[in-house]
Amino acid sequence: MTETVITSPTREVRIGFDRPFVIIGERINPTGRKVLAQEMARGDYSRVEADAIAQVEAGAHMLDVNAGVPLADEPKMLADSVQLVQSITDVPLSIDSSIVAALEAGLAVYQGKALVNSVTGEEERLESVLPLVKRHEAAVVAISNDETGISEDPDVRYAVAKKIVERAADHGIPREDVVVDPLVMPIGAINQAGRQVMHIVRRLREELKVNTTCGASNVSFGLPNRNGINSAFLTMAIGAGLTSAITNPLHADVLQAVLGADVMMGHDPDCTNWIRKYRQPSAARPERERRGRRRRRRSAVA
Amino acid sequence: MTETVITSPTREVRIGFDRPFVIIGERINPTGRKVLAQEMARGDYSRVEADAIAQVEAGAHMLDVNAGVPLADEPKMLADSVQLVQSITDVPLSIDSSIVAALEAGLAVYQGKALVNSVTGEEERLESVLPLVKRHEAAVVAISNDETGISEDPDVRYAVAKKIVERAADHGIPREDVVVDPLVMPIGAINQAGRQVMHIVRRLREELKVNTTCGASNVSFGLPNRNGINSAFLTMAIGAGLTSAITNPLHADVLQAVLGADVMMGHDPDCTNWIRKYRQPSAARPERERRGRRRRRRSAVA
Repeated sequence: MTETVITSPTREVRIGFDRPFVIIGERINPTGRKVLAQEMARGDYSRVEADAIAQVEAGAHMLDVNAGVPLADEPKMLADSVQLVQSITDVPLSIDSSIVAALEAGLAVYQGKALVNSVTGEEERLESVLPLVKRHEAAVVAISNDETGISEDPDVRYAVAKKIVERAADHGIPREDVVVDPLVMPIGAINQAGRQVMHIVRRLREELKVNTTCGASNVSFGLPNRNGINSAFLTMAIGAGLTSAITNPLHADVLQAVLGADVMMGHDPDCTNWIRKYRQPSAARPERERRGRRRRRRSAVA
Repeated sequence: MTETVITSPTREVRIGFDRPFVIIGERINPTGRKVLAQEMARGDYSRVEADAIAQVEAGAHMLDVNAGVPLADEPKMLADSVQLVQSITDVPLSIDSSIVAALEAGLAVYQGKALVNSVTGEEERLESVLPLVKRHEAAVVAISNDETGISEDPDVRYAVAKKIVERAADHGIPREDVVVDPLVMPIGAINQAGRQVMHIVRRLREELKVNTTCGASNVSFGLPNRNGINSAFLTMAIGAGLTSAITNPLHADVLQAVLGADVMMGHDPDCTNWIRKYRQPSAARPERERRGRRRRRRSAVA
């Protein structure tokens, strides 16, 4: 059984075929978040802090940390963010950048065994990122595209993933430390996008025997009720063998889909997590609302 | 490709591997509904009428009709219910009883090609129900248990289903007119219930090449947030190949799970159904709430 172990100084997360699904919180990422990008650029990390705490409270097992603000000093910002997040939460992190120097700066300050996000099948990326991953004894997300782009043929994407796993082995990185992202296309544009992912995820699990992750929200790009589509995608992909995703645990639908899928897969013995989460409807509501209900009840008595 | 065709005088529903999932509304069933049972027993079918209309409006493609009130004249009540429902909606029906005389009475008045719910692998049931199905040129739900009960081994349940399909063929009923119910156990009691169903559904599709249905709500028996579990179950089972279910389309979560699964399977080209349903958030809300919003908006202007 393939298990990918990611750690912080005090916690260990295991991604694996026979384990509960791992949610990697996606929110600490300035891409497409203008206010956050501006704040981070001027050294204000208060929103990073709030996003970290909220996602862990909502149920994230790990957090992705990205500091990709154009024209800013990304290596420094990523290192600062990693240190800040590690000072306020104890979940392991995914260090996310397309700039190798930023990954390096993040890894230099990270305490534990990180997940490096990401390497692709492009020659130049393979030879710059994999040595870094090995040097820090980290794990790595392998994105299944290469110089020719993203293939619509899932078997071509599988072949790219296989190449990355083999190259990682050449660098001394074992198969269990490579978590493959099969690349999820927007289903509003590509009708077969869902089936493509199920197909490739099943092959990655049964043939290549690697763990998998993906940016789950991309599938619903351009559609209404995106959380509904993301939920259907995650549930079905977990059924096909997906073992983790970078997604937003603050969306109740998405969290419910993941917890429900864990129950269906037999990964929530006695439905303990499900019952804890949903037994008392009030437990699922934010603290403010609960306080409001208590107040109302008291006035009703008075 | 296996397609099961069920008809009313004006409509045809096709259950099939490459078709949108078929929702068979479960509400017209007095089992566990005391008020409905009492009303039906005294000849008051107003709730049957309301349930029929509400389920079709919510998105049911077919309706299951059951009149199983203990000590009542079930054949007459089932025939009356079938006639009533056919007079107010045009969706095809599933005629549901454990009493052969009631199935016979329902089929005698049904206009179109019905789905008979159900036959089991028990010798006495096979030899009483299958001739009836053949005589009316109907289709039939085959429940995968026999004299020995319900096996926890999905391969035993598969073998029972295979026996029913073969016996149906002996009676001149083609494979496409047998829709197998793999039997869904409560996952709160049997941790592997979800994986059992995925396994048997996949075999039924790939090896026996039959369509499938199930009473989807049973899976969540005894658990909190049952709709959340039912949604996860349906989405994952559709991914494994389930082609229809007897369920409640009035639950927004369940309907969303089915529509989302259709998108994921590539069975909602251009996401037309999804977009129609969710484009305008107000369209998904009940009329009363919409009226309330309009009023509030008006007062805000005034």
